[in-house]
Amino acid sequence: MSTLRKRFEQPALAALPKLTPQERALVQRELAEIAEGDYDGHQPLVEELRKLAAAVPERAYHDSAQVLLRMHEIAGSGNYQSCLSSLQLIRACFELDLIPEVGKAPAELIVGRGHIAPGFYAESYVRGSFPLAPLTTLHQGGLTGVIHRDLGFKNTMRYSLGVGVAQAVSLAMDLARRGDERKVVCLAGDGELQEGVTFECLRFAYEMGLSNLVLVVDANGCGIEPLRKPLNPNYLASFLPQVHQVDGQDAEAIQHALGALLHRPGSAALVCHTRKGEHSFKPANGAAKPANGNAKPTMPSFAGTSGRMLAAYQQRTGQELAVFTADMAARFGLRGHLPYDNTGLAETLSVGLTLLLPEDTLKVIATDAMYYMDSLSMVTEASTSVRNLLVLAGRSWGAWGGAHNATNLLGLLLGVRVYEPITPAEFNAVLDRLAAHPGTAHVASMVDASFTPPGIDCSSRLDGAVWMTPPATARPRAALVTFGYASVLVAEANRDVGLPHLHCAALDPELPPDTLAVLAGCRRIASVEYNGAQGGFGERLRAKYLLPLEVHGIRHDIANRVHARQLALHGMDPQTLRGLLTRLGSQEVDDVPAYA
Amino acid sequence: MSTLRKRFEQPALAALPKLTPQERALVQRELAEIAEGDYDGHQPLVEELRKLAAAVPERAYHDSAQVLLRMHEIAGSGNYQSCLSSLQLIRACFELDLIPEVGKAPAELIVGRGHIAPGFYAESYVRGSFPLAPLTTLHQGGLTGVIHRDLGFKNTMRYSLGVGVAQAVSLAMDLARRGDERKVVCLAGDGELQEGVTFECLRFAYEMGLSNLVLVVDANGCGIEPLRKPLNPNYLASFLPQVHQVDGQDAEAIQHALGALLHRPGSAALVCHTRKGEHSFKPANGAAKPANGNAKPTMPSFAGTSGRMLAAYQQRTGQELAVFTADMAARFGLRGHLPYDNTGLAETLSVGLTLLLPEDTLKVIATDAMYYMDSLSMVTEASTSVRNLLVLAGRSWGAWGGAHNATNLLGLLLGVRVYEPITPAEFNAVLDRLAAHPGTAHVASMVDASFTPPGIDCSSRLDGAVWMTPPATARPRAALVTFGYASVLVAEANRDVGLPHLHCAALDPELPPDTLAVLAGCRRIASVEYNGAQGGFGERLRAKYLLPLEVHGIRHDIANRVHARQLALHGMDPQTLRGLLTRLGSQEVDDVPAYA
Repeated sequence: MSTLRKRFEQPALAALPKLTPQERALVQRELAEIAEGDYDGHQPLVEELRKLAAAVPERAYHDSAQVLLRMHEIAGSGNYQSCLSSLQLIRACFELDLIPEVGKAPAELIVGRGHIAPGFYAESYVRGSFPLAPLTTLHQGGLTGVIHRDLGFKNTMRYSLGVGVAQAVSLAMDLARRGDERKVVCLAGDGELQEGVTFECLRFAYEMGLSNLVLVVDANGCGIEPLRKPLNPNYLASFLPQVHQVDGQDAEAIQHALGALLHRPGSAALVCHTRKGEHSFKPANGAAKPANGNAKPTMPSFAGTSGRMLAAYQQRTGQELAVFTADMAARFGLRGHLPYDNTGLAETLSVGLTLLLPEDTLKVIATDAMYYMDSLSMVTEASTSVRNLLVLAGRSWGAWGGAHNATNLLGLLLGVRVYEPITPAEFNAVLDRLAAHPGTAHVASMVDASFTPPGIDCSSRLDGAVWMTPPATARPRAALVTFGYASVLVAEANRDVGLPHLHCAALDPELPPDTLAVLAGCRRIASVEYNGAQGGFGERLRAKYLLPLEVHGIRHDIANRVHARQLALHGMDPQTLRGLLTRLGSQEVDDVPAYA
Repeated sequence: MSTLRKRFEQPALAALPKLTPQERALVQRELAEIAEGDYDGHQPLVEELRKLAAAVPERAYHDSAQVLLRMHEIAGSGNYQSCLSSLQLIRACFELDLIPEVGKAPAELIVGRGHIAPGFYAESYVRGSFPLAPLTTLHQGGLTGVIHRDLGFKNTMRYSLGVGVAQAVSLAMDLARRGDERKVVCLAGDGELQEGVTFECLRFAYEMGLSNLVLVVDANGCGIEPLRKPLNPNYLASFLPQVHQVDGQDAEAIQHALGALLHRPGSAALVCHTRKGEHSFKPANGAAKPANGNAKPTMPSFAGTSGRMLAAYQQRTGQELAVFTADMAARFGLRGHLPYDNTGLAETLSVGLTLLLPEDTLKVIATDAMYYMDSLSMVTEASTSVRNLLVLAGRSWGAWGGAHNATNLLGLLLGVRVYEPITPAEFNAVLDRLAAHPGTAHVASMVDASFTPPGIDCSSRLDGAVWMTPPATARPRAALVTFGYASVLVAEANRDVGLPHLHCAALDPELPPDTLAVLAGCRRIASVEYNGAQGGFGERLRAKYLLPLEVHGIRHDIANRVHARQLALHGMDPQTLRGLLTRLGSQEVDDVPAYA
């Protein structure tokens, strides 16, 4: 089967009911063309997409803004406003032939605004070089919204904020060394330029004397939240010899200014003043749709209740709080519940600001796997020198990406205790434990999914374990041990299976002797964690207690999918879990699978 | 015993032979005073030090530059030139009463240049508020060279570069909120200001409108290596309303300028132009003394041979190399062997520059635990998207500090393979393995110690294991498994003990069935790693093979000591290891210690 068909057919078919009659007819013609035509996957994906677009040339739309809107209406989520903010820049890039169908571009384009790929697809569509069917699969397992080499970009965006500027400088250095006189155009956001590495890049390019870097900034005054102050042009001017400003909603003006910079000698910045609406897409009916794509749009994620829970704790204890976040206030539901300082997209700083506050103040850092991975040294610094430190570590399995082992990395830092609460009582227990052990940094891994908290939890034995389904006999044949959010998923799957099921809120729990005896007596035991298996919960229990646990967790990289699709990708959907539990409890199967 | 006595008596006694008669007499008087006087440790350490200085008021020197020189001559190592570069700034701070003996200072002083504590002690000494004995114990287990709250500073420096600026902004925010109108003086280096987080701090302070931050820069034009270009004053001026420059070798000029800034409203930068000699202290006889303080000063550390080994590899294979380092060229012995790009003190950038180079180029990042801890997201980015990526991960157990689990953190990154070679052949095997698996990022943990490479190594079975001392029988009673550098230390300790000893170069080795059978048959097996025990080599073997290994590794934070003292602190000295091995092999002891 061709790559095109494998990747887009199923999600495109699933999207058909959401399409207009014209869209539907065109998508069906494209799907027929894929099935019948010569799409053997031997050409790069982007070439096959172009071929398909040429084979079904009729266009449903001629304005890429309309295409963008339809893509997000069909997807029901995404970064519509980010794409819209950059759309005139994108049009200018096409006009300047920076995304050529054949041959070398007059300059290399690096797109650092990771989530604006849909804008390029929409513009390609109206220009006849991108088909319609993939556009209907955005965020639904077909097309991702993130910049990727496979889809015609020079670079791929993945984890790190500000990586686009680093990629651009890496390429600019390489071109200069090879005598290639073309420039590198780096499309960045003003939010992204708050991240420290972008400064390192601009400073280094200046000190190296690179004369082939053109930084194009979509200055919409927003990260996820509004910026505290507009991008400082004097800062750019201190490292780049030319800084120009232009109306970013005027494609012609951008094209004119950027075109001139490509021909004029020397590096430069072009600041394009744009506008951006709310960060996440909201359907026209006005109902907020959570980014995780769960079925119940009105229920906040568990992470989203952090602000409320912290405010209740403050009321209960009267403790002074200082809350810092690198643009993640919405995610943790801080606004309206607690005062906080938004450091912008500057994670290391948000950790650093806790360093010299009064000892008794509870310092809260509300952050995200993608971010704290670049500030582990500062987290270590804080965890060893700051008292009363709480890290709210957002769990990004969803469309944001993030590294699968991020929670485990935190667990390796000196003396840090890591928990993944799944009820308000467990979250409170983390806060109470921190109050009792103010010298130990506590991490609460906060789940970005909405679910009904279970009736049983570890709040009264935070470092231990609790049976969600107790064993019916003293020596059960099989048992399950689960960590944090996986306990919710497994409890659901176990409803009809009924295996003994032990829940832990601690990444590194202490199991009491009687519980250990039950586990050690089992013929088979499995651990389940929605977490990197490597160095994680299950492997720690194996190492600590030499229990022959079969570890079920995330083995591969996290792909960019909405939450429900993430579950299936990583074997955490109810069906896969039920299969795992059934096999584990089965009397027939005696061969214990090897640890892997 | 008093804290003073516990901390300084032994190392001061050990230093006596290196002292002049006058110094010796004074130190002996101070030691007598400590032994007899009222130093019960109930007062803060810094107060007891002042009391001791007052009790023995005679001064051996009246010029702190002379004191600094003597401290480093006695220590034999240290950051003499860094201290000297800042000495006039330090004098100005004393003159402005920023280090008051009693009461509040007119401004809070945060010292971000982590290694210049000796300059403050030397100046305190000539001013009569610091005793002589502790000065003779620098880097020898008594006095550390790093800024620490216990020794009279407002802040403690530990892991993170640029942390001082973050501490200063944290404190400035807090003072402003509390209505304390004093300013915060942050003493930073121009090298340190290359680190991204310092930009995040200055940008944030500007956006917050903080008007109480005075950044004093020791601009000596050097990080560890010379800076590519001098500090850019326009950059500072884009975030701070006043930028002044002054001759940093003129204490009076500094005092005058800084004093004025403390009284004038608003934040400011004061750039002090200074001079710095070579980064590490060299005794007057001209012989280079390695930072790790080993006995053989002429032998480079194993890490220091990286440049030579890489050059040999390039000659052998003809492969194109691109080498990046954040100021660590000397440590890896790059100069004279290979071209490289020094990114300055900007680790994330050094990783980022590998992102868009040609696939076939071997990209080498030569870095340090302290640095890559702040760029793990970028390392993840690179490890998942860059082909032919080699990370030389410097192992900092020595005077540099660094986090004890840093190697284990790398081992948790997606798909990364981690090795700790101890022979050139093992290092070559890592390079060959990378050439065979260019899609997998390889990490070579490079040992910062000089030792004679053992005659037996894992070069022909890099992912496996090799017996350094084979078992004499098919079923030995006890055995040892060791990782990387620990194999060298254990081989030495095992010479008289003769236990079966298995060596691994891989952090996560695959043990062959016959070897596993031998280990599983032992009554006791221990693993030894000069590495964080948590999540490390031994725990991985326990988790992977359910072997009841007793894990011997580093449990606590790394203190700032020279290498030889580090060994003893972490139970890795020959004597401790010999004890461990003897107990393990003993017929009498049957109780297996619990895993811990």
